[in-house]
Amino acid sequence: MSATHKPAIILVRTQMGENIGAAARAMSNFGLEDLRLVAPRDGWPNPVAFPSAASGEYILDQLRVFHTLEEATADLHHLYATSARPRDLHKRTLTPHDTAREIHTHTAAHLRCGILFGPERTGLTNEETVLAHTLVHIPTAAQNPSLNIAQACVVLAYEWFAAQAIMPALPPRKKRTQEAPATQEELHGFFDQLEKNLDRVDFFKTKAKKPVMWQNLRSYFVRSQPTTQDIQTLRGVIRELSTRRTN
Amino acid sequence: MSATHKPAIILVRTQMGENIGAAARAMSNFGLEDLRLVAPRDGWPNPVAFPSAASGEYILDQLRVFHTLEEATADLHHLYATSARPRDLHKRTLTPHDTAREIHTHTAAHLRCGILFGPERTGLTNEETVLAHTLVHIPTAAQNPSLNIAQACVVLAYEWFAAQAIMPALPPRKKRTQEAPATQEELHGFFDQLEKNLDRVDFFKTKAKKPVMWQNLRSYFVRSQPTTQDIQTLRGVIRELSTRRTN
Repeated sequence: MSATHKPAIILVRTQMGENIGAAARAMSNFGLEDLRLVAPRDGWPNPVAFPSAASGEYILDQLRVFHTLEEATADLHHLYATSARPRDLHKRTLTPHDTAREIHTHTAAHLRCGILFGPERTGLTNEETVLAHTLVHIPTAAQNPSLNIAQACVVLAYEWFAAQAIMPALPPRKKRTQEAPATQEELHGFFDQLEKNLDRVDFFKTKAKKPVMWQNLRSYFVRSQPTTQDIQTLRGVIRELSTRRTN
Repeated sequence: MSATHKPAIILVRTQMGENIGAAARAMSNFGLEDLRLVAPRDGWPNPVAFPSAASGEYILDQLRVFHTLEEATADLHHLYATSARPRDLHKRTLTPHDTAREIHTHTAAHLRCGILFGPERTGLTNEETVLAHTLVHIPTAAQNPSLNIAQACVVLAYEWFAAQAIMPALPPRKKRTQEAPATQEELHGFFDQLEKNLDRVDFFKTKAKKPVMWQNLRSYFVRSQPTTQDIQTLRGVIRELSTRRTN
């Protein structure tokens, strides 16, 4: 398995450098390598992160920083969002144990996965969570359900490593085709096209209604897990409909 | 299940207060309560521990501090020692997953369990590990096998909590009898008696040989999992043999 097929850990708007370091240490302990930061509060590099990374410092040296979650996940096929609270997004939810198994199955099929961790106090926004295919719920005690993000990262990395040892080797899949799941980049390209065209025909009617309507619409398309071919077809549909309309 | 039957987390000679706090936070997240410190390097209370405990601060408020591992574990029946390295102690070794299941089974039988975590750099000594019935090995990547102790605590607490949800309810066992496993206190009482009598007959021959011989001998008795009745019988044997000899 090449390093690039291991799941990416994506820390979104993390506040504390210590947590970035502790997450890097846990990744290193459990054989993960691909750390990505989205808009870390205190910028990057952050000297506060390095002591808590200990011998996982090399993970910090090679991490990548992005302005937006879309950019950070463009090359990925399946996104998992860790969540402390149940959410009203009609999304499938897995345990860390089952998430780890599913990720290994995706990896064996040459699909790239990422796991999202939100900021310390607030967690991921609905706007961010909408981009994930699956929620990961770490079961915690009712009296103190809020996990430290580095400790949540420990749980996922630990389960991934433990599952690696027991997963049966799957036959290598043939080269990716049009029938493979679309990447996030392909999905966002479609969203951009769709939004532009919907705005042009005043689909959302009022500015106030747009956020929820647009979130629900994208949530549906994420859930549908379109292939690369599906996205091309959908883009063709939008293009044709829009062209006819403006003619 | 009463609070006192949940497994105790026992941090042995911990160096960093931050790690004590982070362990307390993880315990709180996963519903554990009984934290015990053995000879913490910087004494107790240690103000450095509190910020990293976050809403698990109440665990720190109620923890207990002991001078020795023997005192800290006197009331417990089954000790698990976390270990990063394989050890030459002929001890059974479990994964965190299986450890969690076994602890719930012990708890259902009214047996009290404790999980030992050694100091940051060195881990538990062989002298300390000899007191444990079972080693817990957290699988880690070869390139960086050394887990932070609070992060190791996350893994065990997480597995304990997750197993709680899926363990079938076992029938409550009848009141403890002489046939129940001995407590650590009973075991150590026997060890004290045995050592005194062996010293008196010069069993160990030379001072240099004693540590390893004595470790192996105790390791055998720990592994044998004696009942309270067994310990009483063994003590009787030693007493009788010793009395005859000195007469």
